[in-house]
Amino acid sequence: MNDPVLLTGAGGRVGGAILDGIGDEYDWTLLYHSQPAEEPDAEYFVGDVTDAELMAEACAGVESVVHLAGDPRRDAPWESVLQNNIHGTKVLYDAAIDAGVERLVYASSNHAVGHFETERKPDLYRTDDDFKLDGTELPRPGNFYGVSKVAGETLGRYYHDEHGVAVCNIRIGNLTKAHPPIDYERGQAMWLSHRDCAHLHQRALEAEYEYEIVYGISDNDRKYYSLERAKEALGYEPKDNSAHFSGEDRVEEPEN
Amino acid sequence: MNDPVLLTGAGGRVGGAILDGIGDEYDWTLLYHSQPAEEPDAEYFVGDVTDAELMAEACAGVESVVHLAGDPRRDAPWESVLQNNIHGTKVLYDAAIDAGVERLVYASSNHAVGHFETERKPDLYRTDDDFKLDGTELPRPGNFYGVSKVAGETLGRYYHDEHGVAVCNIRIGNLTKAHPPIDYERGQAMWLSHRDCAHLHQRALEAEYEYEIVYGISDNDRKYYSLERAKEALGYEPKDNSAHFSGEDRVEEPEN
Repeated sequence: MNDPVLLTGAGGRVGGAILDGIGDEYDWTLLYHSQPAEEPDAEYFVGDVTDAELMAEACAGVESVVHLAGDPRRDAPWESVLQNNIHGTKVLYDAAIDAGVERLVYASSNHAVGHFETERKPDLYRTDDDFKLDGTELPRPGNFYGVSKVAGETLGRYYHDEHGVAVCNIRIGNLTKAHPPIDYERGQAMWLSHRDCAHLHQRALEAEYEYEIVYGISDNDRKYYSLERAKEALGYEPKDNSAHFSGEDRVEEPEN
Repeated sequence: MNDPVLLTGAGGRVGGAILDGIGDEYDWTLLYHSQPAEEPDAEYFVGDVTDAELMAEACAGVESVVHLAGDPRRDAPWESVLQNNIHGTKVLYDAAIDAGVERLVYASSNHAVGHFETERKPDLYRTDDDFKLDGTELPRPGNFYGVSKVAGETLGRYYHDEHGVAVCNIRIGNLTKAHPPIDYERGQAMWLSHRDCAHLHQRALEAEYEYEIVYGISDNDRKYYSLERAKEALGYEPKDNSAHFSGEDRVEEPEN
């Protein structure tokens, strides 16, 4: 019998990559923000993470939560990220603790550290630049979305310290299917392939840890995020590297 | 002519220590949450930091902001700190940037790192324990109030990176007048005397820096917060030490 896991933000791009890759590995409960086009092959709810009653229902009987829900826009207005991302994470975590959930896997973001790039770009996107972030640095969010993701990480730290729940904050890079972003150095530096995304989340659901911050990208030559902690704490073994793709036969995909 | 400074939370305990100590050094604009008992000897406003129009008025013509306002209760409910402390700080900082303010001094708190104490107390309150926090560590808030203070620090980091405003986040310890807390090791470890509090804020208003996180305590033998950064970046020269007080003639004061 598979472990019961709640996935919030199941209809988003990261949720899709996870369900494509490890959909058969867990007994999923799915939370969608709006009714999905196709009927999901799992128990599901439609609604907001800010809805405490709904979150109590969604967390019932669950062992782990993968929390992706929230306003995903880089330029999301403050009022939206304050409510959906910051407050929503608190409401969900309360419900999870009340339900006895043992593990919280949180979709943080590269935007939590976006302003490290400001003085260093484009050099840090290049292979001859040694600058690396490893997750021990104090965040420098690049926008209000990033501020909200740092707040979500901080809430995770608090719920871990206060309630003992295992927490892994994954600073997700630039997720695209099939191939890395084209003619976009930053996107190639922080590319996360769909299969590496699914594998990383599986490791976050399986590994033993207390509290972790890891970077969620493929093993790109151009990377300026260290993968050491993801490898060491989670056993992450990325298969992809944006440098292994030539420019041919590519189609553009939206940035994460 | 003195520099024009906006002080939010002017009616609180930290605000009182600042005005007592350096009230003559600046051209203050004061923000009170409710009408003060005595008519202030400076321009003042009464209202909420979440009131954008009021904040625009309060920031007009100001060079620096000392931001103390917010729900100060250690056990403040989430909804209150979300609104008053997190959202309020964002509203104030927006107004400050629009008004051309050059410096933001923010009252963060020991509660931003409260959960570092959990596994180490009471040893870390004692002089034979070498554990020290220095402000480079990732926060571990001990309550929702602490979560909100970390979010306020993060907003300061963002406004500095985005707008170039100088920001100093001061993690204020345990402010009491006259003498340190009695029979309370933690309070003695993180005591901040009134005169050290006023002097530290003056240094935060005078020193040249870009972005700083410092601990705001007196030079207590029992301290587990490093004062190195406050000394180096701000020129802080604390005069007090909780170890220099005997137990006689003391009266209890509420904890900060």
